[in-house]
Amino acid sequence: MTEGTAMIKLYYAANTCSLASHIALEEAGATYTTVRLSFASKEQRGPEYLAINPKGRVPAMVTDRGILTETPAMLAYIAQSFPEARLAPVDDPFAFAQVQAFNSYLCSTVHVAHAHRMRGQRWADDPAAIAAMQRKVPQSVGACFELIERDMLKGPWVIGEAYTICDPYLFTLAGWLEGDGVDLTKLPRVMDHHRRMSERPAVRRAVAAELA
Amino acid sequence: MTEGTAMIKLYYAANTCSLASHIALEEAGATYTTVRLSFASKEQRGPEYLAINPKGRVPAMVTDRGILTETPAMLAYIAQSFPEARLAPVDDPFAFAQVQAFNSYLCSTVHVAHAHRMRGQRWADDPAAIAAMQRKVPQSVGACFELIERDMLKGPWVIGEAYTICDPYLFTLAGWLEGDGVDLTKLPRVMDHHRRMSERPAVRRAVAAELA
Repeated sequence: MTEGTAMIKLYYAANTCSLASHIALEEAGATYTTVRLSFASKEQRGPEYLAINPKGRVPAMVTDRGILTETPAMLAYIAQSFPEARLAPVDDPFAFAQVQAFNSYLCSTVHVAHAHRMRGQRWADDPAAIAAMQRKVPQSVGACFELIERDMLKGPWVIGEAYTICDPYLFTLAGWLEGDGVDLTKLPRVMDHHRRMSERPAVRRAVAAELA
Repeated sequence: MTEGTAMIKLYYAANTCSLASHIALEEAGATYTTVRLSFASKEQRGPEYLAINPKGRVPAMVTDRGILTETPAMLAYIAQSFPEARLAPVDDPFAFAQVQAFNSYLCSTVHVAHAHRMRGQRWADDPAAIAAMQRKVPQSVGACFELIERDMLKGPWVIGEAYTICDPYLFTLAGWLEGDGVDLTKLPRVMDHHRRMSERPAVRRAVAAELA
């Protein structure tokens, strides 16, 4: 959060994917405020927040134009709105699509695999089925990250030499690997990326704000 | 598929989300060729296709710049590469992000809910758990589409007066509702959108090509 007139208000919850947008706003040098939701109190399901985001999920971002949701869209918006921060190749449709493809994979496949550990009730009611989903998370999340390790993370940053909106998103999801029971020894490049990310001042500021 | 030198090659499989990109290429008036994969023959897992897309999924698109995957990224690329077709508000980062947020929701929540009917083995091994997932699909997919019906589909097209890359993607996923056992009587606006989409010449051409 920086000084000045707040043009952007980020709704987030600790330990969720909203951290990616939080970091991106810091990297962009954006002027913004934050609102923390408590998932323990189910604030994301309360009428006040549902008026912001009827999906009842985080993140959401209120701008002077209206409300945005969905991490890949918010990250693209931040990159396009703060071009001087060079968080994506916004003037090159192909390179921009590659960035978006990586983030879409994180959103629709990697995050979804992870969600079967804590959010199984979205997809089954039977407690035994929910337990069966939890058991497969180390394997399903692990397979996603082995693909990232081998094919997708170019190094030193996700798309190569340039730091982009892919990096805070990967950092955020990689932060869940240990809790998901994934074998981290198979992911040395992902782990090295995570360590280098955690040393960036913008990342430190966002993480510190969420822990405060 | 139009005449001329092929700049784009779309890899697709029938009855999958690749139809959205196929329609968008038709709407854009793009010059492209297609390669049909047989899921019955597991061609998407064969070494030839894994060299194109190591994720082993469709769609994938080969361009003269390289390969793209992930429907939301491919749709954004098509809209940005053929601006004269006006398939997205590509010059307005906020409006473009709204388009991308809708498509991200389809990709990461709606398609994922649907996938628990046929692809449960991604997230559990126990046959009883896979059956439990299948039982919840009418409810989980139905809840997504009720939100689209009530809040997200502005009409006449997804974002309002302008036809965009959101429309072929919604059309594609709405085509699965009957098979998913969702109560269609609760979705009159989604069904009307689907009917109007099916009458568009570009949609007819893409569907006919995939059925041929």
